[in-house]
Amino acid sequence: MKKLHAIVPAGGAGTRLWPISRQGHPKFLLDVTKSGWSLLQETVLRLGRVSQSVTVVTGLRHLSAVQNQLQRVLESGRLPKGLLVAVIAEPSPRDSMPAIALATYLLGKKYGSDALIGSFAADHVIPEAHIFHDAVHRAIGAAEEGYLTTIGLEPTAPSTAYGYIHATDTEVAPGAFLVQNFEEKPSEKVAEAFIEDGYLWNAGMFIFQAKTVTDALAELHPQMHDALNQVVTAWRFLEQQEVLTRNWPRLERISIDHALAEPLAQRGLVATTVMKGSKWTDLGDFASLAETERPPDQAKQHVVIDSPGSVVQVPPEKAAVVVGIPGVVVIDTPDALLVTTKEHAQRVKEGVDALEDFGFPQYL
Amino acid sequence: MKKLHAIVPAGGAGTRLWPISRQGHPKFLLDVTKSGWSLLQETVLRLGRVSQSVTVVTGLRHLSAVQNQLQRVLESGRLPKGLLVAVIAEPSPRDSMPAIALATYLLGKKYGSDALIGSFAADHVIPEAHIFHDAVHRAIGAAEEGYLTTIGLEPTAPSTAYGYIHATDTEVAPGAFLVQNFEEKPSEKVAEAFIEDGYLWNAGMFIFQAKTVTDALAELHPQMHDALNQVVTAWRFLEQQEVLTRNWPRLERISIDHALAEPLAQRGLVATTVMKGSKWTDLGDFASLAETERPPDQAKQHVVIDSPGSVVQVPPEKAAVVVGIPGVVVIDTPDALLVTTKEHAQRVKEGVDALEDFGFPQYL
Repeated sequence: MKKLHAIVPAGGAGTRLWPISRQGHPKFLLDVTKSGWSLLQETVLRLGRVSQSVTVVTGLRHLSAVQNQLQRVLESGRLPKGLLVAVIAEPSPRDSMPAIALATYLLGKKYGSDALIGSFAADHVIPEAHIFHDAVHRAIGAAEEGYLTTIGLEPTAPSTAYGYIHATDTEVAPGAFLVQNFEEKPSEKVAEAFIEDGYLWNAGMFIFQAKTVTDALAELHPQMHDALNQVVTAWRFLEQQEVLTRNWPRLERISIDHALAEPLAQRGLVATTVMKGSKWTDLGDFASLAETERPPDQAKQHVVIDSPGSVVQVPPEKAAVVVGIPGVVVIDTPDALLVTTKEHAQRVKEGVDALEDFGFPQYL
Repeated sequence: MKKLHAIVPAGGAGTRLWPISRQGHPKFLLDVTKSGWSLLQETVLRLGRVSQSVTVVTGLRHLSAVQNQLQRVLESGRLPKGLLVAVIAEPSPRDSMPAIALATYLLGKKYGSDALIGSFAADHVIPEAHIFHDAVHRAIGAAEEGYLTTIGLEPTAPSTAYGYIHATDTEVAPGAFLVQNFEEKPSEKVAEAFIEDGYLWNAGMFIFQAKTVTDALAELHPQMHDALNQVVTAWRFLEQQEVLTRNWPRLERISIDHALAEPLAQRGLVATTVMKGSKWTDLGDFASLAETERPPDQAKQHVVIDSPGSVVQVPPEKAAVVVGIPGVVVIDTPDALLVTTKEHAQRVKEGVDALEDFGFPQYL
């Protein structure tokens, strides 16, 4: 019954969770929700229940950390017997399409062009596994009909942090609907209009048959298709890293949204199904983190006065006094400090970019 | 011409400047304005120009630090020749009246009951020495007429952080006016009414003849008068600390405002003169500190975005990102962190009190 081959692209530092998330220890490697597992480990545990295989695609820099974490999951005995877990190291980050395509071409070669494949972020939180699993099953139905199928979320607020999916009423498979088009992150006003019109949040999850992607890339991005075919042909013990490194720079730096989802939607080849009632979050900033996290046992030397809805994380051996800033976000670490509000939590990236521009890579 | 004997009570940790100011290194010992001198040293330098002697009254805990700082001022050659600088250690803090009275009784014995004495805070900032000196000279005129004379400030805002002086139009000496009464720290609404009616800020500076204070204490606080007379009688090498320690606990814990200024004002015996045009501040919180300080050379790894009027002090070796909080106050030290706004800067004390209540004296 478990037909799905899951791909988990694990890249990106999660800049908006700086200074907790750093380039050297990115968000997906961290136990952000204090569950005892990193976000990546939780993702693999969640996918293991509905998949034949899980392939994590990560950067060389994080390869050993990812392998160690996956080893711990395997040793925990919490994964179904027979589940294959693999790791691929991409030579350099080139956005999501090359990472997903590499794994897709490899899985297609191994399991056939009809193989059902899903790509899922390594650093999202989905508290209700059954809601996720139901949505995956519906998406598989649409994917088997040839659709590039995404799993959408019902918006709970006019967020400007997410892209939106404009779905139609046309049911292409049970519980899966034709997508008219995708929308980039909107202004708040536009987001409000989207919500009124029933648009969904785009969580970047895609379920498809291998051939849906390989055929589309052959047509839309032939150079990427050629390069990946060369990689896959030479993909065997000893040769694989060499051929990957040689071909990787030829791959266009592009997201799966721009490379495939949008053009295929124009052709009526994209479907979506809704993960109804899920408290999904991409933990995109400290505001969403605060909603997810179990309230921490606030150290008594961290005094917070008249600051409702605040997020205060300060090392326990340090005193802190916070007064009079509702929704304040205070994240203190030994070498870096963030002070903002939930309202501005998305803008942490601007500060981190400035640190980079000013020549302080050591803090990223 | 220099008739004044200055007293500088140097106690109090300046809780509202926590975590810069601590019990172990209080505000008056710190170079808060980045001038190269501590507030105490600046005070002594300012007073040296108009005084015969300067007597600092401090706690035993800070005695050696105070002596070291005064030694550096003396060695700098910036004090007039012949100026006497003395330090008295009070056995325990008992508010301002006992500290000022102790020095007053000693100075009265040494220089006579007509001696002109002034008491000035150790931790205020007065950028314009000539305005201060002019006000002192006018105050001496009124003090010579027998008035307990205070130096008031023209309010620049309806501050709730200061007490107010209600002066009359009756000129008791050139540029010095009879005080009708004193008002405690008001609500903002009341403060606005005070300003409309021309009330002055009370900066806690008092100029008087020795006998004005000794006579008033003899009548109003006879036990304090007796105890201090015993201390003064025995005040000589070897005996002084013993007699001070023995009598000190007998002294009422009371401010000079409650002990003398208010009752004498009721009797028409208090005058005030205005320090017109001065940018005086008591540096009572980080809001007033921000106005005083030269803008610091912000370290480039301290990134402040959309936070106009902010005060950000973070160790230079640490990165900081502050986004979207106008008037935010961020004071980071190795063992303690403060985050508030200028608007709430007066309330830092609540947080510090909580740290004490929760049993963390090490952070005070």
